[in-house]
Amino acid sequence: MTGSLVIAGLGPGSDAMVTPEVTGALARATDVVGYIPYVARIAPRAGLVLHASDNRVEMDRATAALRMAAEGRHVVVVSSGDPGVFAMASAVFEALEPHPEWHGLDIRVLPGITAMLAAAAAAGAPLGHDFCAINLSDNLKPFDLVLKRVRLAVEADFAMAFYNPRSRSRPDQFGHVLEVLRGVCTPERLVILARAVSTPEQALRVLPLCEVTPEMADMRTVVIVGSSATRRVGGWVYTPRSA
Amino acid sequence: MTGSLVIAGLGPGSDAMVTPEVTGALARATDVVGYIPYVARIAPRAGLVLHASDNRVEMDRATAALRMAAEGRHVVVVSSGDPGVFAMASAVFEALEPHPEWHGLDIRVLPGITAMLAAAAAAGAPLGHDFCAINLSDNLKPFDLVLKRVRLAVEADFAMAFYNPRSRSRPDQFGHVLEVLRGVCTPERLVILARAVSTPEQALRVLPLCEVTPEMADMRTVVIVGSSATRRVGGWVYTPRSA
Repeated sequence: MTGSLVIAGLGPGSDAMVTPEVTGALARATDVVGYIPYVARIAPRAGLVLHASDNRVEMDRATAALRMAAEGRHVVVVSSGDPGVFAMASAVFEALEPHPEWHGLDIRVLPGITAMLAAAAAAGAPLGHDFCAINLSDNLKPFDLVLKRVRLAVEADFAMAFYNPRSRSRPDQFGHVLEVLRGVCTPERLVILARAVSTPEQALRVLPLCEVTPEMADMRTVVIVGSSATRRVGGWVYTPRSA
Repeated sequence: MTGSLVIAGLGPGSDAMVTPEVTGALARATDVVGYIPYVARIAPRAGLVLHASDNRVEMDRATAALRMAAEGRHVVVVSSGDPGVFAMASAVFEALEPHPEWHGLDIRVLPGITAMLAAAAAAGAPLGHDFCAINLSDNLKPFDLVLKRVRLAVEADFAMAFYNPRSRSRPDQFGHVLEVLRGVCTPERLVILARAVSTPEQALRVLPLCEVTPEMADMRTVVIVGSSATRRVGGWVYTPRSA
């Protein structure tokens, strides 16, 4: 019996941003595995088992999904956004590493619209030229490394997208990053705070750096900081192609 | 008569990666505007005018699209990948800037799967942690700025995605970037060359930096360079979440 494992991106929230190949993979699945709010987006049907698990158990979830695929099930691991950007794909490959008996499994990664692309589209085109994406969470890496990357990104004059800027268990990170930015950028540098983008709760703010406060971000927010060339036109924000 | 302008991402090539909101916008369009090979992906139908134009006329194309929308047409500007990543969205906002009479137009940007996300998914999860995207073309910016960004990105230990690494008119850029990388990275640093990803011509190579040569890339290739932590597991390449 030959199983399969698909790691699929559901996009940032709207079903209108789920790609047909992800919808197709879900239609063929015997099992869907993921964090509770993402699995909640999948319609139940006969023959489909939904395995919803809590946050911060990514490795257990990944190993369970691999085991089910090895047993012949057709498993889809769901992520929000793109599974390869601060999401489940890396966790699955990390879980695969110590299990050579599973290395021949039929595994596919299906990309999705990651939050920064949806946030950028909602604001205009702030990532219209060279940019970087940094996960501000220090759950798995030292926070000094985050701050070093922010400093170098400013020096390179990248536009920047920050994932996981702030949560209840990490209330201070975004404030520290803002301090670094204020030390090296002008007060007018444009910042976009995009919360729950593409969902009915979407809230988008565009502010100069000097007006941004840490509590404007939470775990559902992606923050985009423009490059030195990022500017407004009408109600939009964009980074010129020559930036 | 109220027109509209949608700037839509068609994804990297496969129709299975076109989001339903983009498909819906195309179904409602009176006019589709874009570079010849992208417009060629749109099925003709009664009531739809296709406006295909050559490469390097982005500003003319953007202005024409804005003018048609101002005249009451429902215009979709198509880009490959995501329109906000090295594509048409910035050009449209740049063309909008000198025309305040158009600033109130109904404009929307619809994100798409950008090439680096599709390439990363095909390879595993090489962008699984902090990363940057750099356009190697010097059509609109000095090449010294590109090389500076590459150096700083290595110092930050980002995974890197390079767009437009090499073309007939710019045959040398990718070679210069490889020289910079060889000066600062180990010879084993993993490089992914993903050509025409998600199309029938897809070709994916994973090589250590020391084996990469400039002619392995062309204008249909996106190049992903791993961080120092990027590694192989089975046939896959991934960057650990702790990187």
